[in-house]
Amino acid sequence: MASPRTVFTVAAVQTEPVFGAVEANLAALDHHLADVGADLIVLPELCSTGYSFQDRAEALELAETFPEGPLSQRLLAWSARTGGMLVAGFAEREGEQVYNAAAVVAAGEPLGTYRKLHLFGFERECYDRSEGPLRVFEHEGLRVGVMICFDWMFPEAARTLALQGADVIAHPSNLVLPGWCQQAMLVRALENRVYTLTANRTGTEHRPPRPELRFTGLSRIAGPDGKALADAAEQDAAVLSASVDTTVSRCKTIASGNDVFAERRQHDYRGWAP
Amino acid sequence: MASPRTVFTVAAVQTEPVFGAVEANLAALDHHLADVGADLIVLPELCSTGYSFQDRAEALELAETFPEGPLSQRLLAWSARTGGMLVAGFAEREGEQVYNAAAVVAAGEPLGTYRKLHLFGFERECYDRSEGPLRVFEHEGLRVGVMICFDWMFPEAARTLALQGADVIAHPSNLVLPGWCQQAMLVRALENRVYTLTANRTGTEHRPPRPELRFTGLSRIAGPDGKALADAAEQDAAVLSASVDTTVSRCKTIASGNDVFAERRQHDYRGWAP
Repeated sequence: MASPRTVFTVAAVQTEPVFGAVEANLAALDHHLADVGADLIVLPELCSTGYSFQDRAEALELAETFPEGPLSQRLLAWSARTGGMLVAGFAEREGEQVYNAAAVVAAGEPLGTYRKLHLFGFERECYDRSEGPLRVFEHEGLRVGVMICFDWMFPEAARTLALQGADVIAHPSNLVLPGWCQQAMLVRALENRVYTLTANRTGTEHRPPRPELRFTGLSRIAGPDGKALADAAEQDAAVLSASVDTTVSRCKTIASGNDVFAERRQHDYRGWAP
Repeated sequence: MASPRTVFTVAAVQTEPVFGAVEANLAALDHHLADVGADLIVLPELCSTGYSFQDRAEALELAETFPEGPLSQRLLAWSARTGGMLVAGFAEREGEQVYNAAAVVAAGEPLGTYRKLHLFGFERECYDRSEGPLRVFEHEGLRVGVMICFDWMFPEAARTLALQGADVIAHPSNLVLPGWCQQAMLVRALENRVYTLTANRTGTEHRPPRPELRFTGLSRIAGPDGKALADAAEQDAAVLSASVDTTVSRCKTIASGNDVFAERRQHDYRGWAP
């Protein structure tokens, strides 16, 4: 019997969507993904619509249902070609509800969505409050947890995913704060002994009454030792890639002999879960 | 009526204890602290005894009871002089139990101890398992949470302290891993919007059967924006100082308008508290 596969290639794609130009943004993604054959590909938050919705009505109008909408269909096609997983941020519509979400597909099949728990700034005016849930998707032995952008600020989010067995945290983002997240993701990877893929966008948007926003690029793949495995520039599209070894992400024992998951003192942590 | 005080000076002291030479180590601390008048002073882990106990019996022999022991008495004297708080790592004896602990005193009075929850490497052979607890000590309006060295690896520890209202996390350390903690403390400060003082030691110890250890220095004070406010070198004794503003550490709202404590999604985090 063949041994289970433990090494996977993963990729994070940095792009610059044009607000509201869904077909043009999908065509640009077609172009960026043409030569990418990774087992996991992560795209930015709201990668087909842009970010700065002026109000909830506009978000609802540009949102799509999963997996019927145009981004979802494209993801299914790309993943049918690669045979791997894709995770991409989009505005998800369900009836009259709209969520800042990530679509997850693998090998031409829809796996589900994650709806962002921690909404940033004016997102709170555009999207419905979600129930997540923070969950892990598995395909061919690779376990991928999903969180979106500002979820990075809350160590509980990455921890919840890692405790569910994530090897990799896929992290579609539209970051605007100055380098905070990029720095923090090294620690999220280290403290959880997982790989993280932050796929950020670049460029600017200014759609009053929203403030002018500059997205910070610097997409990053980090490894379980808290080191960057690949980094993009502040501007320009980029495809980052790295190799993931699940025998590393599933070993929580560091050089000192401490198993940093088994040795958590769960009963002595207070105030941060019900 | 006077407004409550909100600005405090804090100091972290980096030293190189000599194993077992308690009186000499206390005399060195006397020297380092002679001109330090901060409202809070943090000293390294096991600052009066050294680190590499060969076994539990040796730890018990060099341990002291609080506040009767020699380090405790010196802390009381120093704090009587400064009028402020001191936090210092020591081996705490209670009956036949021995803990890797931190003593907390203020203005000549004992406030209590914290017993390290996450024991590193061979510490697990030397100390009894503690119940912590992770708690916050207050003096003249400054709220100080205490954790020790390897506790940094577990985001739950700093979070538990911050959720209890800590303005500052006092973090006596004897770090040996390559720069991991120093990097992570910037993120612990940022994610909790608090100040952190990591007082590390320098030098080497080699006491078989224990491995030769090189302590990494680089003591660091970090602020709520995730920036280092003061850094020591890898070697040499040092006194770092900074100013703490509790109006900053008590405001958990960032530029986007998000209150990163109130917006925690406690019911959606799973698996990390009972």
